[in-house]
Amino acid sequence: MTTATALTGVIPPVCTPLTPDFEVDTGSLTRLVDHLLDGGVDGLFVLGSSSEVAFLPDGHRAIVLDTVLGHVGGQVPVLAGVIDMTTPRVLEHVRAAVKAGVDGIVATAPFYTRTHPVEIDGHFRTIAGQAGLPLYAYDLPVSVHSKLGADLLLGLAADGVLAGVKDSSGDEAGLREVILGRRERSDIGSFSVLTGSELTVDSALWMGADGVVPGLGNVDPHGYTRLFRSASEGDWEAARTEQERLFRLFGLVRAGGARMGAGSSAMGAFKAALHLRGIIDHPTTALPQIPLDGDETGRVGAYLAAAGLL
Amino acid sequence: MTTATALTGVIPPVCTPLTPDFEVDTGSLTRLVDHLLDGGVDGLFVLGSSSEVAFLPDGHRAIVLDTVLGHVGGQVPVLAGVIDMTTPRVLEHVRAAVKAGVDGIVATAPFYTRTHPVEIDGHFRTIAGQAGLPLYAYDLPVSVHSKLGADLLLGLAADGVLAGVKDSSGDEAGLREVILGRRERSDIGSFSVLTGSELTVDSALWMGADGVVPGLGNVDPHGYTRLFRSASEGDWEAARTEQERLFRLFGLVRAGGARMGAGSSAMGAFKAALHLRGIIDHPTTALPQIPLDGDETGRVGAYLAAAGLL
Amino acid sequence: MTTATALTGVIPPVCTPLTPDFEVDTGSLTRLVDHLLDGGVDGLFVLGSSSEVAFLPDGHRAIVLDTVLGHVGGQVPVLAGVIDMTTPRVLEHVRAAVKAGVDGIVATAPFYTRTHPVEIDGHFRTIAGQAGLPLYAYDLPVSVHSKLGADLLLGLAADGVLAGVKDSSGDEAGLREVILGRRERSDIGSFSVLTGSELTVDSALWMGADGVVPGLGNVDPHGYTRLFRSASEGDWEAARTEQERLFRLFGLVRAGGARMGAGSSAMGAFKAALHLRGIIDHPTTALPQIPLDGDETGRVGAYLAAAGLL
Amino acid sequence: MTTATALTGVIPPVCTPLTPDFEVDTGSLTRLVDHLLDGGVDGLFVLGSSSEVAFLPDGHRAIVLDTVLGHVGGQVPVLAGVIDMTTPRVLEHVRAAVKAGVDGIVATAPFYTRTHPVEIDGHFRTIAGQAGLPLYAYDLPVSVHSKLGADLLLGLAADGVLAGVKDSSGDEAGLREVILGRRERSDIGSFSVLTGSELTVDSALWMGADGVVPGLGNVDPHGYTRLFRSASEGDWEAARTEQERLFRLFGLVRAGGARMGAGSSAMGAFKAALHLRGIIDHPTTALPQIPLDGDETGRVGAYLAAAGLL
Repeated sequence: MTTATALTGVIPPVCTPLTPDFEVDTGSLTRLVDHLLDGGVDGLFVLGSSSEVAFLPDGHRAIVLDTVLGHVGGQVPVLAGVIDMTTPRVLEHVRAAVKAGVDGIVATAPFYTRTHPVEIDGHFRTIAGQAGLPLYAYDLPVSVHSKLGADLLLGLAADGVLAGVKDSSGDEAGLREVILGRRERSDIGSFSVLTGSELTVDSALWMGADGVVPGLGNVDPHGYTRLFRSASEGDWEAARTEQERLFRLFGLVRAGGARMGAGSSAMGAFKAALHLRGIIDHPTTALPQIPLDGDETGRVGAYLAAAGLL
Repeated sequence: MTTATALTGVIPPVCTPLTPDFEVDTGSLTRLVDHLLDGGVDGLFVLGSSSEVAFLPDGHRAIVLDTVLGHVGGQVPVLAGVIDMTTPRVLEHVRAAVKAGVDGIVATAPFYTRTHPVEIDGHFRTIAGQAGLPLYAYDLPVSVHSKLGADLLLGLAADGVLAGVKDSSGDEAGLREVILGRRERSDIGSFSVLTGSELTVDSALWMGADGVVPGLGNVDPHGYTRLFRSASEGDWEAARTEQERLFRLFGLVRAGGARMGAGSSAMGAFKAALHLRGIIDHPTTALPQIPLDGDETGRVGAYLAAAGLL
Repeated sequence: MTTATALTGVIPPVCTPLTPDFEVDTGSLTRLVDHLLDGGVDGLFVLGSSSEVAFLPDGHRAIVLDTVLGHVGGQVPVLAGVIDMTTPRVLEHVRAAVKAGVDGIVATAPFYTRTHPVEIDGHFRTIAGQAGLPLYAYDLPVSVHSKLGADLLLGLAADGVLAGVKDSSGDEAGLREVILGRRERSDIGSFSVLTGSELTVDSALWMGADGVVPGLGNVDPHGYTRLFRSASEGDWEAARTEQERLFRLFGLVRAGGARMGAGSSAMGAFKAALHLRGIIDHPTTALPQIPLDGDETGRVGAYLAAAGLL
Repeated sequence: MTTATALTGVIPPVCTPLTPDFEVDTGSLTRLVDHLLDGGVDGLFVLGSSSEVAFLPDGHRAIVLDTVLGHVGGQVPVLAGVIDMTTPRVLEHVRAAVKAGVDGIVATAPFYTRTHPVEIDGHFRTIAGQAGLPLYAYDLPVSVHSKLGADLLLGLAADGVLAGVKDSSGDEAGLREVILGRRERSDIGSFSVLTGSELTVDSALWMGADGVVPGLGNVDPHGYTRLFRSASEGDWEAARTEQERLFRLFGLVRAGGARMGAGSSAMGAFKAALHLRGIIDHPTTALPQIPLDGDETGRVGAYLAAAGLL
């Protein structure tokens, strides 16, 4: 992958398996990578939100980078999240990722601080200037509490700052504005539009998106690659049918109900599913997330069974 | 300061002076500490929001800790912020702060993740269990996007988890609920209620708060200590007059107007004021914040002059 | 239209033309209705947000109902919004609409008050019980500040309370949850899912939505009916091409820029476009909205020209 | 009360008693007015949020105006809320209130629509121009979803548009900005600053506010007038003690817990308290609010008993 070739296809955000004492479980992590590669994915995104990056100390982040890059060995491109509050802290993660040998980096706008579009613009320019690697903007308002506008993204694309965007905003009209703007502006070269909305992948591809970064793709990578291949071949009916099956499967993220945060419930369910499928050794999630109990795990299993995954 | 003695008085969040190439300016930092001590402050809070902690890489955080602790030498207690997204990352900062020899630590609820009161409760319990030092909760919804409720805080106080709270929520009824709850519950020992709302300090103290953590206290520590002493002596008229003077001075935070974020404008103004007063060498703020221009700095100077500080 | 037949197709929210002294311009209103019928629409929705219902006193609402119902004479079903803060006030509008002879009514959740799903449920049940006409829920979080969940909607559908939903939330995953839930639950009879997101109509129909309520359909009803017919005939490429043309046209809503609210700008642009196309006599919008100036109106004209509508 | 004399003191928002079939209970309403006058209040505010104005059809609003104005007979000034979505609808309520003979009117910014400060400014100017009576701005972001800034309010005050503000925002620094701005601007004549934050009345008065509009004042008007009189006489300790007693009493608003909205719970508790105290005949709240059950009403009674009100 270089800046000259836009990233396309299914690039799951790789979960980070943990041991019961909250260390990175590298054995499980390589098995998970094999599971994803076996699923036919087109790339891997480590240290994203579904990787519990917000919960990983720098040492754990380094282990993840080394483990995955060492195991993948260039079979597919590996992107790394450099998630932190502001430019100087993000740059530290960029240095670590570049040194580890990733193929691209993924950064959000600043958060925790009260920011401004001009500052967000400068943030991405500084990061790109120091990374020397394709930079992808990560639009995740539920975590970052600001939205990346189409004008901002397209301006940065035209200046060669951004190689693409992962849009997890759920704002499909905004996604389309970026897709159409990219098509109509002659000053934009290669720019990948990837959706992080795993429940509307068929329609995002239909609008012209290049790929998807689905958290649920950890559990069922084969489903997402089938979806993407069907769409690529113009078999939209098949793509929709696959998406609808995955939509139903996605119900597992609510296993934890109201006794925990939505993040705990979703992460707990993804890991419970991977554990039930025999891919990772422990369903442990990082603190202070609440673990699923037996009933809740049973509910996850029922979703897997209904989707033909058990 | 021990857990047996509640923290009281004026504990400013210490700004972090930077050189023009964005390194920690330790010479300016020690002069700023001297300025604050000369102002009669009762403690120092390093690595808080007004310290640009969100912009400081871990290496810079360590320099700040070492510089300030070395310089203060126990004259007043020094609290340190351990601001990061979740428990495991916060614990790394706790270890660094404990090793550096701080007197207490200040932590927010998890952010970036979607969290839940039960998870926030667990978060503080885990941190307190590992710190072995007084732990203060930092309530800052504008950055953290959740509010710490009185029931949560008082429960943690009763269990000896929290030594106090820094309430920067601006919710004065909520602040009062904590103050009255603390008074009425017999199971709560020492628990400091500090307001971070620098414009309503007289009324917070009137309600029963123990002290204040004012960002503007960098610029005018003498003003805040006069305010606190007046209130302590029961001279509420003098306290109010001082607060009103500081209220007018606070207008400087809007110097940057709408061309930058509110954070850039406020930090830029605090540092411009410290530079104009001759306390720090450079008004540099961390990236991606926008620097104040000449006109904007002039406006800061006018506020200082009007307040009798130039 | 009865409860036995689900509403489908293009049902634009009819703008309310005003005279320069802010009275309902009934002559322009009937011309607008003719324009929409000429465009082949399948129904009309009066007194919706794009009708400036929030700005219309009850007397004006009555004039709109009488004018449109009298003019349409049953050629297509006419739905009426009954937009007000809570159940008792909504019921007054329901009585007026029923008396005027509408074919269905459209109500939001309570707003201005702090509400709760159980109260929203009761709200719709009370309205349906008194209306004796098909009731459509209007999901518009940008105005109402709550979101109608799929479980709530599907439960009300199963109980025969709701005949459908107009989903203007922009939450396409939520829209899909309703569509799939409707399909999978055997206890739900006729239930129309209409999208109010005028920029993603092709994908909403692709997911299984029954129709669209497009504000922009006032300006270009022929475009939206072409889009819907193409999709109905399975010519999704043509539907997408039409949608993309309409997407570009939609840019006119930003004509007013930042000197006014987004509502003023969008309403001003819709009315300027209808005026420029010769359909209504005055581009007047209701107070306190800011009128577009000459330059801004010129920008609207340029969008019309680019879309082949001038 | 004229524009020349600023409104001061305790002006409770008068609850609207209802019969079990949801009609205005005028007998209970006049008894409630007598109860408030007996409590020594300085004015009455009918058709505010605590009057369930959002739930009252226009006919009920008229009955309330006529009943209260007829009964009060000029003993104290009566203000009336004209709560509706936008200027034209508000003007209808203004006409009714003026005709009924009120002494002042109270209006919020537009809601339901997406608005802008310039539009809000025009909104108040239009209302004042047509009312010919003192106009008070009602700042209630929890319902209106925008905040009235100090600059906007003070500009309207200087132009004679506004006679005052009822600030229910809970933003005490913002309240103080208005109070200090009023004092420092020579172009502002009479302008009343009233707090709607019933839990921080002592501190608001301390800052310089002129009075309070306390929902809880329905239940215990004597408490709020004692608080105000103490503050007026400079006995701030007594004012604080009274405020703390009222703070504890306010806990009754949470009687309904999480099974209903916060509005239902608070309104239900106010009315249950008035019913338990023998002032109104029925604790009925308007639809779709959830009524308190027996246990919840018992909890309200316990709060009354603890406050010495039963």
